[in-house]
Amino acid sequence: MKVDFWFSELQNEDVKFGVRVKSHLFSKESKYQKIDIFDTEFFGRVMVLDGCFMITEKDEYMYQEMLTHPAMVSHPNPRNVLIIGGGDGGVAREVLRYPVESVDLVEIDEDVIAASKAYLPKIAVSFEDSRLKVHNMDAFEFVDTDKSYDIILVDSTDPIGFAASLFSDVFYMKAQKLLKGNGIIATQSGSPFMNPDFIKKAHRGLKGHFSNIRPYLSFVPTYPSGMWSYIMASNSPIEIRGKFKGRYVNSEIYQSCFALPEFVKKILES
Amino acid sequence: MKVDFWFSELQNEDVKFGVRVKSHLFSKESKYQKIDIFDTEFFGRVMVLDGCFMITEKDEYMYQEMLTHPAMVSHPNPRNVLIIGGGDGGVAREVLRYPVESVDLVEIDEDVIAASKAYLPKIAVSFEDSRLKVHNMDAFEFVDTDKSYDIILVDSTDPIGFAASLFSDVFYMKAQKLLKGNGIIATQSGSPFMNPDFIKKAHRGLKGHFSNIRPYLSFVPTYPSGMWSYIMASNSPIEIRGKFKGRYVNSEIYQSCFALPEFVKKILES
Repeated sequence: MKVDFWFSELQNEDVKFGVRVKSHLFSKESKYQKIDIFDTEFFGRVMVLDGCFMITEKDEYMYQEMLTHPAMVSHPNPRNVLIIGGGDGGVAREVLRYPVESVDLVEIDEDVIAASKAYLPKIAVSFEDSRLKVHNMDAFEFVDTDKSYDIILVDSTDPIGFAASLFSDVFYMKAQKLLKGNGIIATQSGSPFMNPDFIKKAHRGLKGHFSNIRPYLSFVPTYPSGMWSYIMASNSPIEIRGKFKGRYVNSEIYQSCFALPEFVKKILES
Repeated sequence: MKVDFWFSELQNEDVKFGVRVKSHLFSKESKYQKIDIFDTEFFGRVMVLDGCFMITEKDEYMYQEMLTHPAMVSHPNPRNVLIIGGGDGGVAREVLRYPVESVDLVEIDEDVIAASKAYLPKIAVSFEDSRLKVHNMDAFEFVDTDKSYDIILVDSTDPIGFAASLFSDVFYMKAQKLLKGNGIIATQSGSPFMNPDFIKKAHRGLKGHFSNIRPYLSFVPTYPSGMWSYIMASNSPIEIRGKFKGRYVNSEIYQSCFALPEFVKKILES
C-alpha cells in the first residue's frame, strides 16, 4: 500500500515538484549543507542537497552524460580531467568510460561522497577506479594547483551560498590557466526558463577568458522546468570529433544540443 | 502577502507538480471534462482540464509553436489547415500567422473555447480571425468530411477517455484520406520519459498510413517531465523550407528538434 508521504522541492517560492516517498533512508546536516536520501516510488533513490534534487536513479544519466560527453568527444585526446564538485561520482563514472590517465575530483563535502557510496552504488562506482583521486577541499583553493588539464567539468550546486565562487570571474580566470592549450571547460548553468540570470552570468564570465563559447541544452526531468543548460568554453576551436553513445547522448544529440530556442538566445544577447 | 494556496497536477500517482495560486478564476464541469482557470504567481493564468495543465501564459508558446511551425514550414504552400482539438485557440493563433485561406478547428467542448475567450484573451485572439471556422463536434466524426487539407494538427488531450479515438488506427486512416498529396499531419505524442507507451502507439499508428514519419521533441516546462514529443507524418518527403521565427522556434530548432536521445530511439524501435 502506498502512503501519502511526499518530498517536494520548492523550485522557487511559487513552484514545487513532489515525489512520493517509500522511505527516508538518510539525513545529515554536514558542515556545508543538508543531505537527504529518499527511496521514491517513481524515481528510485534520490539525493537531495538543501532541499533540491541533485540526482535520481531514473534520470541521472541525462545530466551526467550531457555535462561530460560533449566536452570529452570534442577533445582529440583527453588524458587529464578535473571535476569540480560531483561528489556523487556520476560525472566521474562517465569520464572514466574513456582511456583517461587521471581524474581529480574536488568535492568540498566528504559527507556527499559517503552518502553516495552508501546509497547510490551504481553512481558512486567511480570511486573504485584507481585513476580517480578525490580531493576533499574547496575547489576555489584547489585551482591554484600547478597541474594542468585537458578537460575541466564544473558539476557544482547552483551559484548561491558556498558554491557562488565557482561561477566568479576569478574562478574562470584560474580555470583558464589550468587548461592546456586545447583544453575545454564545461559547466552546468541552470535552467534558462526558471533562472535566466544564472546562464547569463556564467556566459558573460566565461567570455572574459575564452574565445570559443558554446552554450547547449538537455532535458533533465527532475531539475526545475526540465530544461537544463551547460556551457563549453575553450581557447581552441570546439568541434565534435567522437561518437560515444550513452543512454542519452549519441551523434545526433552532439550536433543538435547547441540549437537554442529563440528566448534563450535573447537571454544571452541581453 | 502570498498565501499557502496551491494547485498541483498529479502527473502520475507518484509525481506531482504544484503552482502557487493567487485566485481560482473559473471552474466548470462541462459535458466532457472539468475545466479550471487559475491565476498563479509564477505562470500567470493557467487552464487546467481534468486536473492537468493545458496552458500557462508563461510557457504556452513552447508547445503551440512546436506543434504548429515544423509542419507549416515543411509545406511549400499551406492554404487549408485542420486543427483537431485546440479549443484554447493557441495553435490556431500560430497557424494564422501564415497567409492561409481557411482553418477548420474541431473542438468537441464549447466550454473550453468560452473559458479561453473569457480568461486567456491573448491565446483566444485567433477566434476573431475570419479565416477560422469553429466546428463544435467530435473530431472522429468530422474527419468523414469530403474537404481536403494541406496540414492537419492534432492538439488533443492525452489518449485516455474521450480523446482516445484520436490516436486510433481508424482515425489515422481517415486523416490520411483528408490530406492532399503533399499534406502533412502533426500530432502531440506526450512525454517519452513519463509515458513511453503514448509515443510508441502514435508512432506505430502513423506508420501504418504514412511513408514518412518524423518524431521530434521540445521543452515544455509545465508538461510532465518538461520533455514533450510530437510526430509529423506525410506521404511526401518532409523537408524544412521556411524560416518562421517565433519566441521558441527558429531555423536551428527546425533542424535540431528531430535529434532524439538514445532512450527515445530505443522506445520507438521496441
